[in-house]
Amino acid sequence: MHSWIDGQPATAVNLQNRGLAYGDGLFETIAVRGGRPSLLSRHLERLALGCERLAIDIDLALVRDELLRYASQLGEGVAKLIVTRGDSQRGYAPAPGALARRILQGGPRPAYPAGNAEQGIGLFDCQTRLAQQPLLAGLKHLNRLEQVMARAEWQDSACAEGLMRDVQGHLIEGVYSNLFLVRDGVLLTADLSRCGVAGVMRAALLDEAPALGIEVRTGDLVQADLEAADEVFVCNSVYGIWPVRTFAALNLDWPAGPLTRKLQAVARTLLDT
Amino acid sequence: MHSWIDGQPATAVNLQNRGLAYGDGLFETIAVRGGRPSLLSRHLERLALGCERLAIDIDLALVRDELLRYASQLGEGVAKLIVTRGDSQRGYAPAPGALARRILQGGPRPAYPAGNAEQGIGLFDCQTRLAQQPLLAGLKHLNRLEQVMARAEWQDSACAEGLMRDVQGHLIEGVYSNLFLVRDGVLLTADLSRCGVAGVMRAALLDEAPALGIEVRTGDLVQADLEAADEVFVCNSVYGIWPVRTFAALNLDWPAGPLTRKLQAVARTLLDT
Repeated sequence: MHSWIDGQPATAVNLQNRGLAYGDGLFETIAVRGGRPSLLSRHLERLALGCERLAIDIDLALVRDELLRYASQLGEGVAKLIVTRGDSQRGYAPAPGALARRILQGGPRPAYPAGNAEQGIGLFDCQTRLAQQPLLAGLKHLNRLEQVMARAEWQDSACAEGLMRDVQGHLIEGVYSNLFLVRDGVLLTADLSRCGVAGVMRAALLDEAPALGIEVRTGDLVQADLEAADEVFVCNSVYGIWPVRTFAALNLDWPAGPLTRKLQAVARTLLDT
Repeated sequence: MHSWIDGQPATAVNLQNRGLAYGDGLFETIAVRGGRPSLLSRHLERLALGCERLAIDIDLALVRDELLRYASQLGEGVAKLIVTRGDSQRGYAPAPGALARRILQGGPRPAYPAGNAEQGIGLFDCQTRLAQQPLLAGLKHLNRLEQVMARAEWQDSACAEGLMRDVQGHLIEGVYSNLFLVRDGVLLTADLSRCGVAGVMRAALLDEAPALGIEVRTGDLVQADLEAADEVFVCNSVYGIWPVRTFAALNLDWPAGPLTRKLQAVARTLLDT
């Protein structure tokens, strides 16, 4: 589908755009089903938080309207929204009164192997560590060289995701996803106050869990937690949940267990409604 | 002056460009004097190092030729070269065989107040801390949200530069420059192996100093070093050297001292030849 800039069809962005110059912006990757953006309110909430933290002035009602229009034309697939601080001349200081720019791109639903969701995936052990930067932690901003480097570490298609740790060795997330462990029926996920992307699906699962009678703990995770886990899964707002079955680096494997399956169904429903 | 993409006039870049999507690339800001790019070999060396670290495949001889052609048309001013990993569809993995893209933009020589070089400048105390990421340290990559946030901290035109520390409180650099201290005739500058941009002018000064009989020490700098400094200056490859005269946050001031003046003349010569 055609891309839009600020609501108008476009294929290219001005060379003065601060997204290109400095990665000065944010993005959201949004599943579109039946002409509707899935988890729209959560995506907009995270975008609003990011714009607030980066002091990017944006009309969120307009973003919402555009996303709804774009999704209705896309029908089925994935929409990617990039918001940048607009254009400016050379220099880190924004141009006074520069308008944030909204870029929408759309594509078909990714052709993931069906086995990823059904049987589960292998997890690669990335050597690229995440720096700790509390000012940017949690945001889906455009400074993503760490993810690019991590993704370049493996070619083996047996691993559909890679585990990223921070510089202190804490387990943080997948390159494209958030990471959950299950131990003794408790759901564990990383604290993302120093690094990592606070995924929209992660947030939704954390909110849904208590009503399902599932206890949740968010905190620092280390390798011993991985070794002691009964189940492991990754999640994002495009595919929902994939069970993690193997982590060859430590010779670990897990079943696609009952809690993973239960939450996988929840994620499916969240994406479809 | 017109911008170029891959040697051809252009005003916009494809929306699939990985520079926009992920900040997946590098840049160089190059003074152009008398139709020639100043410090060209050093800019190309740093770019080569960055491309190697990020595994971006680029024809450096072609980059050099384009820079020479572009500078000869620009005459006087500043050229900005952006190199990105080219275009790709959604996802951090590069498209196989994607070609790096070269973007050249040019503008007039910046109209800095003459007093910056002559009398010196005030230094703002930025609260934005630099994360420690050894994999990216030293590179002038496109992930520059930390600099954008730091630059947004002050409006006071009495401060022409801001001091950036890392998350551990070490003094690292200016938002746009590298930082040097002088103490007892010795030149001190920060170790940039965990964060910071290893500036081309910094490298040139470190290379020139011994021949001038100036001892250099590169290492961790802390606030006490600033308090004990006899002279302080910042440098970059556009303006050369500016003496730092005041750091109001700690009620510190320094003269525009003899070593600063000596190196300022050296920097001027480096930029002009």
